[in-house]
Amino acid sequence: CGMRFHGSYEAPQWKHVQSSNPPCDPTADDRLYHICISAISVAVMLILAILARRMKVGYRQKGLPGLLSPVNFLDHTRHKGLAVAVFGVLLCKLWGLVISPNPLPFTKSTENKQNWVILGVFYYPALYYPLLACGTLHNKVGYVLGSLLSWTHFSVLVWQKVDCPRTPVIYKYYSLFSSLPQIACLAFLSFQYPLLLFKGFKDAEKDNAAEDLSSSYYSDYVKKLIKKRPAKSSTSGTDKPKLPHRIIDAVKSYIYTPEDAFRFPLKLAVSAVVSIITLYQVGLVLITAVVPTLQIARMGVDEDVANLLAGFKIILSPDKKEVVRLVVYYMWCVEVCYISAMTLSALVNLAMLMRSMVLHRSNLKGLYRGDIYNVYNCQRSIRASRPALVCWMGYTSFTAAHVFIAMFVQTLIFFLSLLIAVFLVIIPVLHAQNLILFQILLSMPFWLMIILVVLIQHITARFCFIKKTAGTQDLDKRGSLFLLTYLLFPVNVLIGVLLAFWRLIITALFNIVHMGRMDISLLNRNVEAFDPAYRCYAHYLKIEVSQSHPVMKAFCGILLQSMGPEGKAAQRTRDAEEGIQLVQQEKKQHKVSSAKMARGRWQLLYTLVNNPSLVGTRKHHQHQTAQSFVNGSFSRSTKQGSKKEAPPKEDQAPASN
Amino acid sequence: CGMRFHGSYEAPQWKHVQSSNPPCDPTADDRLYHICISAISVAVMLILAILARRMKVGYRQKGLPGLLSPVNFLDHTRHKGLAVAVFGVLLCKLWGLVISPNPLPFTKSTENKQNWVILGVFYYPALYYPLLACGTLHNKVGYVLGSLLSWTHFSVLVWQKVDCPRTPVIYKYYSLFSSLPQIACLAFLSFQYPLLLFKGFKDAEKDNAAEDLSSSYYSDYVKKLIKKRPAKSSTSGTDKPKLPHRIIDAVKSYIYTPEDAFRFPLKLAVSAVVSIITLYQVGLVLITAVVPTLQIARMGVDEDVANLLAGFKIILSPDKKEVVRLVVYYMWCVEVCYISAMTLSALVNLAMLMRSMVLHRSNLKGLYRGDIYNVYNCQRSIRASRPALVCWMGYTSFTAAHVFIAMFVQTLIFFLSLLIAVFLVIIPVLHAQNLILFQILLSMPFWLMIILVVLIQHITARFCFIKKTAGTQDLDKRGSLFLLTYLLFPVNVLIGVLLAFWRLIITALFNIVHMGRMDISLLNRNVEAFDPAYRCYAHYLKIEVSQSHPVMKAFCGILLQSMGPEGKAAQRTRDAEEGIQLVQQEKKQHKVSSAKMARGRWQLLYTLVNNPSLVGTRKHHQHQTAQSFVNGSFSRSTKQGSKKEAPPKEDQAPASN
Repeated sequence: CGMRFHGSYEAPQWKHVQSSNPPCDPTADDRLYHICISAISVAVMLILAILARRMKVGYRQKGLPGLLSPVNFLDHTRHKGLAVAVFGVLLCKLWGLVISPNPLPFTKSTENKQNWVILGVFYYPALYYPLLACGTLHNKVGYVLGSLLSWTHFSVLVWQKVDCPRTPVIYKYYSLFSSLPQIACLAFLSFQYPLLLFKGFKDAEKDNAAEDLSSSYYSDYVKKLIKKRPAKSSTSGTDKPKLPHRIIDAVKSYIYTPEDAFRFPLKLAVSAVVSIITLYQVGLVLITAVVPTLQIARMGVDEDVANLLAGFKIILSPDKKEVVRLVVYYMWCVEVCYISAMTLSALVNLAMLMRSMVLHRSNLKGLYRGDIYNVYNCQRSIRASRPALVCWMGYTSFTAAHVFIAMFVQTLIFFLSLLIAVFLVIIPVLHAQNLILFQILLSMPFWLMIILVVLIQHITARFCFIKKTAGTQDLDKRGSLFLLTYLLFPVNVLIGVLLAFWRLIITALFNIVHMGRMDISLLNRNVEAFDPAYRCYAHYLKIEVSQSHPVMKAFCGILLQSMGPEGKAAQRTRDAEEGIQLVQQEKKQHKVSSAKMARGRWQLLYTLVNNPSLVGTRKHHQHQTAQSFVNGSFSRSTKQGSKKEAPPKEDQAPASN
Repeated sequence: CGMRFHGSYEAPQWKHVQSSNPPCDPTADDRLYHICISAISVAVMLILAILARRMKVGYRQKGLPGLLSPVNFLDHTRHKGLAVAVFGVLLCKLWGLVISPNPLPFTKSTENKQNWVILGVFYYPALYYPLLACGTLHNKVGYVLGSLLSWTHFSVLVWQKVDCPRTPVIYKYYSLFSSLPQIACLAFLSFQYPLLLFKGFKDAEKDNAAEDLSSSYYSDYVKKLIKKRPAKSSTSGTDKPKLPHRIIDAVKSYIYTPEDAFRFPLKLAVSAVVSIITLYQVGLVLITAVVPTLQIARMGVDEDVANLLAGFKIILSPDKKEVVRLVVYYMWCVEVCYISAMTLSALVNLAMLMRSMVLHRSNLKGLYRGDIYNVYNCQRSIRASRPALVCWMGYTSFTAAHVFIAMFVQTLIFFLSLLIAVFLVIIPVLHAQNLILFQILLSMPFWLMIILVVLIQHITARFCFIKKTAGTQDLDKRGSLFLLTYLLFPVNVLIGVLLAFWRLIITALFNIVHMGRMDISLLNRNVEAFDPAYRCYAHYLKIEVSQSHPVMKAFCGILLQSMGPEGKAAQRTRDAEEGIQLVQQEKKQHKVSSAKMARGRWQLLYTLVNNPSLVGTRKHHQHQTAQSFVNGSFSRSTKQGSKKEAPPKEDQAPASN
């Protein structure tokens, strides 16, 4: 099913809306392309299904259910590229769906756009599903099909854009720029599938199809965990760190540096990429929708504007040419403010994204260790539950949506702030006229009084009212302190008004800057859970920690390996879920040597002591314990219990497992 | 120095600004009144000073320094009425100073208003100082002078307001209403001083002048503290409380019910009264500045308005009378919205004030117990320091200022929200036309899809993807879960946009509603200290707890009493500060029986274990301990240390001290 050439195809109605850009029909017509590619995708899925049924008789594959599980979101070790790229393509398509006046290419009318959007929202995930499915079978045929499919997608898209770089929507090159991330993602896929195929030939299904559980990542993590930590006496014993040191620390906490013994869950990696694509798309829309219009308006300013302004009793200058010059200058300022606000907002969001990555890592590591209180600020049970699962499913999407809204709101607020700053501060200072704001601010006596009173309070507090005796500080001269407190009451009210304004500004600024981040709550610590975004993140973490705890996976991996030599190699399963089930089923059937059993038990014990969040997932974990877990007494009781069982072994931490 | 009658006095210029209200000259001219009352106040202070010097030779009084310490802000037991009333009068005067075009009555010109305001800010505290000072000496002459002075202030103010109820500023009765809290405070003082005098005659300086430290309040507090708490097994052992129970608890936490064994620090009591007066004054200004103007505008609507609207191409109705009726109706709606917004804001602030009182109490009690982590969310040293002292001095004023700003911002935001609600929702619904908002919202397919997808996710999560085995919940059917997650990605982005809007609204609403409260931070828990108001409150609590810990005061009181019988009655001092100093000086000179010493030591130990925040104030408290205190390991080390000293005694908690 190739591409037919449609030079004489009639243009859809909406292309005539903006007559400045002539409508352009790509040689590869979109409607035909979609019909063909849908058919190809269905064919690919059928081939894969037949292949999967045939492979089911083999020892390792899961058959059709495996094909219908597009990507294991709870697997930390598999290569994340495929899933990330497909999600990127999907997001770009969704964005186009909302922006474009003609969401799906199957119809030519712009009526019922809403219904077509709803259809498109389900159509596109299905359309790009084969791109993911080709990778799930770990099969050469799958990789070949994936390569062909991604090449088709990529080449048609590039062909369309080269053929028709200009479209009438928003801005002539908007469509071209908007499809750049999509092209990048498809290019990545077109490169990745052949690479996988090549690797598959070379490694002959050995390393390439390595199972999640037998990956060395988890055992490396456990080795790192069990290693004794260096004593941190040098920092904890001394005084507070100095100011420059603290500033460097604060800056460092915004820079994400990868760590060997930690890999991000797939969902977080997808979220990060999706956030960056959202940033790009929102920035593009914000720029292309406003700046060209402003520029056209600026070009079109002539002497009529002076008459228009005079109609509103605004006379900038008696000379009309001077008025035109001023108006053009002011419009240029507005343009600069707008672009700066957009850039600032994008940079802020990028910084926030980096900071989020750092925080995600520390939160995950903390929860693995059982530091529930530090992460959530209250005791919670780390278990799979209905709301947790729903939040986990939506987390990636919600991240993108929050970045989207945050970027809009930030650009708006920053733009207004910059406008105020430029037109009330910078331009008056440059032209040395209309210094209204300065006249208000520089009414000296009032500010002098405020500053003096604040200084007096600080100096008297430091030198008169506090005395240091024997290492402690205590109050002195209470009478004078009370007198000063009373006399300065009215002035302090005025200072308080300034403080309240400062509070207003700093609170608003903080919340606007952090609006795109789901990993912190914008509310007070006692009502954190009322922030829907933070609540979702907290639930998401629960699933992530309870279902893909690296120590649990390492443990399952070790158990599977220890069963391997006893002739059960065919029983090796693909993922942790089955691993645990198998272990529980097989445990009773096979006699393990007592030394091995003891070693296993000891490992279990040590693991549970260091990772209390795992206790909840054990089989014989009682309902009552779950209760005490809820009521906050969990970690204590667990630790005491484990100490009772094996107190002498606690000290000899092994260097290897 | 009586009142001269000035019927023919020339009116100041500003009274002619608004010609609608004729200027009114009170018979008791303000300028003359201020000159006289200043002279009287100076005379009263001189008399009190002479009295204080003569009393200094007596055994108990502190002489002039005592006179210059207007009110002991760290004393919980003394009657708080006098100080609260004087602060109330002061705040009303400050408010008048800012609003009035002629801040001080000594000049007739309105030039240099700023300088007069600065002068007034220091003049009024000095003017009302004698009203406080008369109560500090606990002397009959002082009470008589206080009665006379408060009667003078009260009668002149009432006389002026009866004589001249209408003033041209803001609204004809504004000045009258604005002075009501001032009149109430002065009336309270006029009533309180004679009462004190009467009590002084009756009790002959016994109960009346009872010392802070010998008050039974502190020992009652300690008795309550040492009493064994009832075991709370009934609630902690069971499941989460039911929803109605939790709602009742939440409502209860907003209602302040006094407790016997706890009294508020004076500063908090003053803050509460000052907040209420600020609420009243801001509400009054908001109403009187806007509502009369709106009403006049509504009365003045005639058929010209139809022509005016037609000029802007707005044609409400072809009939001009109908247009007038509609415009009047819309203006009435705006008025109702405005008054509702103001009332809502006042009610919200009152509720917040009540909630603050509850929280203040629990915070203070928590800090007395040493629950530093619960209150501050981090380990801090509870010591007097420079910033803490400055914040303590300004706390009352800052509270008033924050309520002031919060009330303005809240009224503005609530007004805008109500306007949107009324003109976009309620009026269209009532008139069944222009249902723009509903047309947008009720575009069915889209919302149906969103609701369906959310429902599908919740139902599948509940019934398919979670299985319960042996008391734990685990994931099931991971493949389908991953497939659903992938397919619903685009829809979830749309849901995420709604969620982000909801986050925006809820965060803004929460922060606006809580803006007047200093006791909670509006920022995220990790950056709480960047909220200046919360930082100030945290520092304020430090001083309050470290300087007036009831257990410390009870302890000092007991030590002073035990010294009493040994003939040192004359050495009794007026307040805790001197009490501690004396104890430390006299300890070595007097041999106390060993039984008493042991009892004393045991009491000290028990007290310190239960109130770790006191350790920092002990004399031989080492610098190193202060360091460990800073580094967060304080409470542990203290408790371990005390356990080492007297482990067997820990269990036998005494019922009495």
